[in-house]
Amino acid sequence: MIQIRPATPSDFEQIWPIFHTIVAAGETYTYPQDTDQQQAFQLWMETPRQTFVAEDNGEILGSYFIKTNQTGGGKHVCNCGYMVSPKARGLGLARLMCEHSQEIAKQYGYQAMQFNFVVASNQVAVQLWTKLGFATVGRLPQAFLHPQLGYVDALVMYKCLAE
Amino acid sequence: MIQIRPATPSDFEQIWPIFHTIVAAGETYTYPQDTDQQQAFQLWMETPRQTFVAEDNGEILGSYFIKTNQTGGGKHVCNCGYMVSPKARGLGLARLMCEHSQEIAKQYGYQAMQFNFVVASNQVAVQLWTKLGFATVGRLPQAFLHPQLGYVDALVMYKCLAE
Repeated sequence: MIQIRPATPSDFEQIWPIFHTIVAAGETYTYPQDTDQQQAFQLWMETPRQTFVAEDNGEILGSYFIKTNQTGGGKHVCNCGYMVSPKARGLGLARLMCEHSQEIAKQYGYQAMQFNFVVASNQVAVQLWTKLGFATVGRLPQAFLHPQLGYVDALVMYKCLAE
Repeated sequence: MIQIRPATPSDFEQIWPIFHTIVAAGETYTYPQDTDQQQAFQLWMETPRQTFVAEDNGEILGSYFIKTNQTGGGKHVCNCGYMVSPKARGLGLARLMCEHSQEIAKQYGYQAMQFNFVVASNQVAVQLWTKLGFATVGRLPQAFLHPQLGYVDALVMYKCLAE
Protein backbone atom coordinates (compact mmCIF):
# COMPACT_ATOMS: atom_id res chain seq x y z
CA MET A 1 0.00 0.00 0.00
CA ILE A 2 1.68 3.16 -1.21
CA GLN A 3 1.58 6.13 1.12
CA ILE A 4 2.62 9.70 0.33
CA ARG A 5 3.90 11.79 3.24
CA PRO A 6 6.19 14.78 3.90
CA ALA A 7 9.88 13.86 3.67
CA THR A 8 12.16 14.04 6.69
CA PRO A 9 15.91 14.74 6.36
CA SER A 10 16.72 11.09 7.13
CA ASP A 11 14.60 10.01 4.13
CA PHE A 12 17.27 11.43 1.88
CA GLU A 13 19.36 8.30 2.37
CA GLN A 14 16.76 6.49 0.25
CA ILE A 15 15.98 9.43 -2.04
CA TRP A 16 19.60 9.97 -3.06
CA PRO A 17 20.04 6.73 -5.09
CA ILE A 18 16.85 7.57 -7.01
CA PHE A 19 17.94 11.17 -7.59
CA HIS A 20 21.43 10.12 -8.57
CA THR A 21 20.32 7.48 -11.08
CA ILE A 22 17.94 9.87 -12.81
CA VAL A 23 20.20 12.93 -12.77
CA ALA A 24 23.39 11.10 -13.79
CA ALA A 25 21.53 9.78 -16.85
CA GLY A 26 21.01 13.44 -17.85
CA GLU A 27 17.94 12.77 -19.96
CA THR A 28 15.15 14.50 -18.09
CA TYR A 29 16.37 17.05 -15.54
CA THR A 30 18.58 20.11 -15.94
CA TYR A 31 20.54 19.39 -12.77
CA PRO A 32 24.21 18.81 -13.65
CA GLN A 33 24.85 15.11 -14.25
CA ASP A 34 27.61 15.15 -11.63
CA THR A 35 25.44 16.73 -8.91
CA ASP A 36 26.76 15.30 -5.63
CA GLN A 37 24.82 14.14 -2.60
CA GLN A 38 25.20 17.37 -0.67
CA GLN A 39 24.11 19.54 -3.61
CA ALA A 40 21.20 17.17 -4.24
CA PHE A 41 20.10 17.48 -0.61
CA GLN A 42 20.04 21.24 -0.96
CA LEU A 43 18.20 21.18 -4.30
CA TRP A 44 15.61 18.56 -3.43
CA MET A 45 15.15 18.89 0.33
CA GLU A 46 16.02 22.46 1.28
CA THR A 47 15.22 24.82 -1.60
CA PRO A 48 11.61 23.66 -2.13
CA ARG A 49 8.75 24.72 0.09
CA GLN A 50 8.05 21.06 0.91
CA THR A 51 9.28 17.65 -0.24
CA PHE A 52 7.22 14.47 -0.15
CA VAL A 53 8.04 10.77 -0.46
CA ALA A 54 5.96 7.88 -1.77
CA GLU A 55 6.73 4.78 0.24
CA ASP A 56 5.62 1.20 0.32
CA ASN A 57 6.22 -0.57 3.64
CA GLY A 58 9.00 1.84 4.60
CA GLU A 59 10.68 1.61 1.20
CA ILE A 60 10.82 4.94 -0.64
CA LEU A 61 9.87 4.47 -4.30
CA GLY A 62 9.42 8.09 -5.34
CA SER A 63 9.66 11.68 -4.24
CA TYR A 64 8.45 15.09 -5.30
CA PHE A 65 8.88 18.70 -4.27
CA ILE A 66 6.60 21.72 -4.43
CA LYS A 67 7.84 25.28 -4.54
CA THR A 68 6.63 28.76 -5.44
CA ASN A 69 7.59 29.31 -9.07
CA GLN A 70 8.00 33.10 -9.01
CA THR A 71 7.92 35.63 -6.20
CA GLY A 72 5.96 38.90 -6.21
CA GLY A 73 3.19 39.07 -8.79
CA GLY A 74 3.86 35.46 -9.82
CA LYS A 75 3.65 33.84 -6.41
CA HIS A 76 0.21 32.28 -6.96
CA VAL A 77 1.77 29.70 -9.32
CA CYS A 78 3.68 26.71 -7.99
CA ASN A 79 6.19 24.34 -9.53
CA CYS A 80 6.79 20.65 -8.81
CA GLY A 81 9.38 18.05 -9.70
CA TYR A 82 8.83 14.29 -9.47
CA MET A 83 11.17 11.31 -9.40
CA VAL A 84 10.25 7.64 -9.47
CA SER A 85 12.70 4.88 -8.62
CA PRO A 86 13.64 2.98 -11.78
CA LYS A 87 12.49 -0.23 -10.13
CA ALA A 88 9.03 1.22 -9.47
CA ARG A 89 8.32 2.43 -12.99
CA GLY A 90 4.99 1.51 -14.53
CA LEU A 91 3.14 1.35 -11.21
CA GLY A 92 1.42 4.72 -11.66
CA LEU A 93 3.54 6.43 -9.01
CA ALA A 94 4.12 9.60 -11.05
CA ARG A 95 0.39 10.00 -11.57
CA LEU A 96 -0.24 9.37 -7.86
CA MET A 97 2.35 11.96 -6.84
CA CYS A 98 1.15 14.53 -9.37
CA GLU A 99 -2.46 14.19 -8.21
CA HIS A 100 -1.28 14.44 -4.60
CA SER A 101 0.76 17.54 -5.40
CA GLN A 102 -2.25 19.27 -6.96
CA GLU A 103 -4.23 18.74 -3.76
CA ILE A 104 -1.33 20.05 -1.69
CA ALA A 105 -0.99 23.02 -4.03
CA LYS A 106 -4.63 23.92 -3.52
CA GLN A 107 -4.23 23.58 0.25
CA TYR A 108 -1.27 25.96 0.04
CA GLY A 109 -3.45 28.42 -1.88
CA TYR A 110 -1.77 28.19 -5.29
CA GLN A 111 -3.99 28.88 -8.26
CA ALA A 112 -1.93 27.13 -10.92
CA MET A 113 0.94 24.70 -11.40
CA GLN A 114 3.69 25.22 -13.96
CA PHE A 115 6.34 22.84 -15.21
CA ASN A 116 9.09 25.07 -16.56
CA PHE A 117 11.14 22.56 -18.45
CA VAL A 118 9.69 19.23 -19.60
CA VAL A 119 12.17 17.67 -22.00
CA ALA A 120 10.16 16.98 -25.15
CA SER A 121 11.81 13.60 -25.73
CA ASN A 122 10.51 12.45 -22.34
CA GLN A 123 7.29 11.28 -23.96
CA VAL A 124 6.10 9.29 -20.97
CA ALA A 125 6.09 12.46 -18.87
CA VAL A 126 4.58 14.67 -21.59
CA GLN A 127 1.76 12.19 -22.16
CA LEU A 128 1.08 11.76 -18.46
CA TRP A 129 0.99 15.47 -17.67
CA THR A 130 -1.26 16.02 -20.70
CA LYS A 131 -3.60 13.30 -19.48
CA LEU A 132 -3.67 14.95 -16.05
CA GLY A 133 -4.87 18.23 -17.54
CA PHE A 134 -1.66 20.15 -18.15
CA ALA A 135 -1.61 22.26 -21.30
CA THR A 136 1.56 22.74 -23.30
CA VAL A 137 1.78 26.54 -23.20
CA GLY A 138 5.31 26.90 -24.47
CA ARG A 139 8.03 25.19 -26.50
CA LEU A 140 11.67 26.18 -26.00
CA PRO A 141 13.51 25.34 -29.23
CA GLN A 142 16.51 23.08 -28.69
CA ALA A 143 16.79 24.24 -25.11
CA PHE A 144 18.03 20.89 -23.79
CA LEU A 145 21.17 18.98 -24.70
CA HIS A 146 20.24 15.31 -24.43
CA PRO A 147 23.23 12.99 -24.01
CA GLN A 148 22.05 10.64 -26.77
CA LEU A 149 19.66 12.70 -28.91
CA GLY A 150 21.55 16.00 -29.00
CA TYR A 151 19.58 19.24 -28.81
CA VAL A 152 15.88 18.70 -28.19
CA ASP A 153 13.01 21.06 -27.34
CA ALA A 154 11.71 21.60 -23.85
CA LEU A 155 8.06 22.25 -23.06
CA VAL A 156 6.41 24.60 -20.60
CA MET A 157 3.29 22.95 -19.19
CA TYR A 158 0.63 24.64 -17.13
CA LYS A 159 -2.54 23.73 -15.28
CA CYS A 160 -5.03 26.06 -13.66
CA LEU A 161 -6.05 24.62 -10.29
CA ALA A 162 -9.07 26.82 -9.63
CA GLU A 163 -12.30 24.82 -9.43
CA MET B 1 27.77 59.44 -24.84
CA ILE B 2 26.30 56.31 -23.29
CA GLN B 3 28.76 53.62 -22.31
CA ILE B 4 27.98 50.08 -21.17
CA ARG B 5 30.46 48.45 -18.80
CA PRO B 6 30.55 45.75 -16.08
CA ALA B 7 29.05 46.93 -12.80
CA THR B 8 31.14 47.28 -9.66
CA PRO B 9 29.65 46.86 -6.16
CA SER B 10 29.80 50.61 -5.58
CA ASP B 11 27.60 51.19 -8.66
CA PHE B 12 24.73 49.75 -6.69
CA GLU B 13 24.24 53.07 -4.93
CA GLN B 14 22.96 54.42 -8.26
CA ILE B 15 21.29 51.18 -9.40
CA TRP B 16 19.18 50.82 -6.26
CA PRO B 17 16.88 53.84 -6.87
CA ILE B 18 16.18 52.52 -10.39
CA PHE B 19 15.59 48.97 -9.13
CA HIS B 20 13.41 50.20 -6.27
CA THR B 21 11.20 52.43 -8.42
CA ILE B 22 10.56 49.68 -10.95
CA VAL B 23 10.09 46.83 -8.47
CA ALA B 24 7.94 48.79 -6.01
CA ALA B 25 5.56 49.60 -8.90
CA GLY B 26 5.09 45.83 -9.28
CA GLU B 27 4.07 46.00 -12.91
CA THR B 28 6.88 44.27 -14.75
CA TYR B 29 9.09 42.14 -12.49
CA THR B 30 8.20 39.25 -10.19
CA TYR B 31 10.48 40.48 -7.42
CA PRO B 32 8.40 41.24 -4.32
CA GLN B 33 7.34 44.88 -4.32
CA ASP B 34 8.89 45.35 -0.87
CA THR B 35 12.29 43.93 -1.86
CA ASP B 36 14.81 45.83 0.25
CA GLN B 37 18.20 47.15 -0.74
CA GLN B 38 20.16 44.20 0.62
CA GLN B 39 17.94 41.66 -1.12
CA ALA B 40 18.13 43.69 -4.31
CA PHE B 41 21.91 43.69 -4.16
CA GLN B 42 21.92 39.92 -3.90
CA LEU B 43 19.37 39.46 -6.71
CA TRP B 44 20.83 41.96 -9.15
CA MET B 45 24.55 42.00 -8.35
CA GLU B 46 25.45 38.63 -6.80
CA THR B 47 23.20 35.92 -8.21
CA PRO B 48 23.80 36.72 -11.90
CA ARG B 49 26.90 35.70 -13.76
CA GLN B 50 27.60 39.36 -14.58
CA THR B 51 25.87 42.69 -14.18
CA PHE B 52 26.38 45.70 -16.47
CA VAL B 53 25.53 49.38 -16.22
CA ALA B 54 24.75 51.92 -18.91
CA GLU B 55 26.14 55.29 -17.90
CA ASP B 56 26.30 58.76 -19.33
CA ASN B 57 29.07 60.93 -17.90
CA GLY B 58 29.26 58.88 -14.71
CA GLU B 59 25.49 58.84 -14.21
CA ILE B 60 23.97 55.37 -14.30
CA LEU B 61 20.82 55.34 -16.43
CA GLY B 62 20.26 51.61 -16.79
CA SER B 63 21.50 48.19 -15.77
CA TYR B 64 21.17 44.58 -16.86
CA PHE B 65 22.30 41.17 -15.71
CA ILE B 66 23.13 37.99 -17.57
CA LYS B 67 22.91 34.53 -16.03
CA THR B 68 22.73 30.90 -17.07
CA ASN B 69 19.04 30.02 -17.27
CA GLN B 70 19.27 26.32 -16.45
CA THR B 71 22.13 24.11 -15.33
CA GLY B 72 23.05 20.74 -16.83
CA GLY B 73 21.55 20.02 -20.24
CA GLY B 74 20.07 23.53 -20.35
CA LYS B 75 23.21 25.52 -19.63
CA HIS B 76 23.71 26.74 -23.20
CA VAL B 77 20.77 29.13 -22.77
CA CYS B 78 21.16 32.40 -20.88
CA ASN B 79 18.69 34.76 -19.29
CA CYS B 80 18.86 38.55 -18.92
CA GLY B 81 16.97 41.24 -17.07
CA TYR B 82 17.06 44.95 -17.95
CA MET B 83 16.11 48.09 -16.06
CA VAL B 84 16.07 51.64 -17.37
CA SER B 85 15.83 54.67 -15.10
CA PRO B 86 12.39 56.29 -15.45
CA LYS B 87 14.09 59.55 -16.36
CA ALA B 88 15.96 57.90 -19.23
CA ARG B 89 12.99 56.25 -20.91
CA GLY B 90 12.58 56.70 -24.62
CA LEU B 91 16.29 57.10 -25.33
CA GLY B 92 16.71 53.58 -26.70
CA LEU B 93 18.62 52.34 -23.67
CA ALA B 94 16.76 49.04 -23.40
CA ARG B 95 17.54 48.29 -27.04
CA LEU B 96 21.18 49.26 -26.51
CA MET B 97 21.51 47.04 -23.46
CA CYS B 98 19.72 44.11 -25.11
CA GLU B 99 21.97 44.27 -28.16
CA HIS B 100 25.00 44.52 -25.87
CA SER B 101 23.82 41.53 -23.86
CA GLN B 102 23.49 39.42 -27.00
CA GLU B 103 27.11 40.14 -27.88
CA ILE B 104 28.21 39.30 -24.35
CA ALA B 105 26.12 36.12 -24.43
CA LYS B 106 27.88 34.98 -27.60
CA GLN B 107 31.27 35.79 -26.04
CA TYR B 108 30.29 33.64 -23.06
CA GLY B 109 29.39 30.81 -25.45
CA TYR B 110 25.63 30.80 -24.98
CA GLN B 111 23.60 29.60 -27.94
CA ALA B 112 20.29 31.21 -27.07
CA MET B 113 18.69 33.78 -24.80
CA GLN B 114 15.43 33.20 -22.97
CA PHE B 115 13.17 35.64 -21.15
CA ASN B 116 11.17 33.49 -18.74
CA PHE B 117 8.51 35.94 -17.71
CA VAL B 118 7.65 38.98 -19.82
CA VAL B 119 4.44 40.46 -18.43
CA ALA B 120 2.08 40.63 -21.43
CA SER B 121 0.73 44.03 -20.43
CA ASN B 122 4.26 45.45 -20.69
CA GLN B 123 3.71 46.17 -24.36
CA VAL B 124 6.77 48.39 -24.76
CA ALA B 125 8.98 45.49 -23.73
CA VAL B 126 7.12 42.87 -25.78
CA GLN B 127 7.32 45.03 -28.90
CA LEU B 128 10.99 45.82 -28.40
CA TRP B 129 12.05 42.21 -27.81
CA THR B 130 9.99 41.16 -30.82
CA LYS B 131 11.68 43.81 -32.95
CA LEU B 132 15.06 42.55 -31.72
CA GLY B 133 14.33 39.03 -32.97
CA PHE B 134 12.84 37.34 -29.92
CA ALA B 135 10.03 34.90 -30.65
CA THR B 136 7.15 34.46 -28.25
CA VAL B 137 7.46 30.72 -27.59
CA GLY B 138 5.11 30.49 -24.63
CA ARG B 139 2.19 32.18 -22.93
CA LEU B 140 1.52 31.55 -19.25
CA PRO B 141 -2.17 32.17 -18.64
CA GLN B 142 -2.85 34.72 -15.89
CA ALA B 143 0.52 33.98 -14.35
CA PHE B 144 1.08 37.55 -13.14
CA LEU B 145 -0.98 39.58 -10.70
CA HIS B 146 -0.70 43.16 -11.90
CA PRO B 147 -1.49 45.75 -9.21
CA GLN B 148 -3.88 47.69 -11.46
CA LEU B 149 -4.92 45.21 -14.16
CA GLY B 150 -5.37 42.08 -12.04
CA TYR B 151 -4.29 38.74 -13.49
CA VAL B 152 -2.52 39.04 -16.83
CA ASP B 153 -0.59 36.58 -18.98
CA ALA B 154 3.18 36.31 -19.01
CA LEU B 155 5.18 35.48 -22.13
CA VAL B 156 8.21 33.29 -22.62
CA MET B 157 10.43 34.84 -25.29
CA TYR B 158 13.41 33.18 -26.94
CA LYS B 159 16.11 34.04 -29.43
CA CYS B 160 18.64 31.71 -30.97
CA LEU B 161 22.04 33.44 -31.02
CA ALA B 162 23.84 31.12 -33.42
CA GLU B 163 24.93 32.81 -36.62
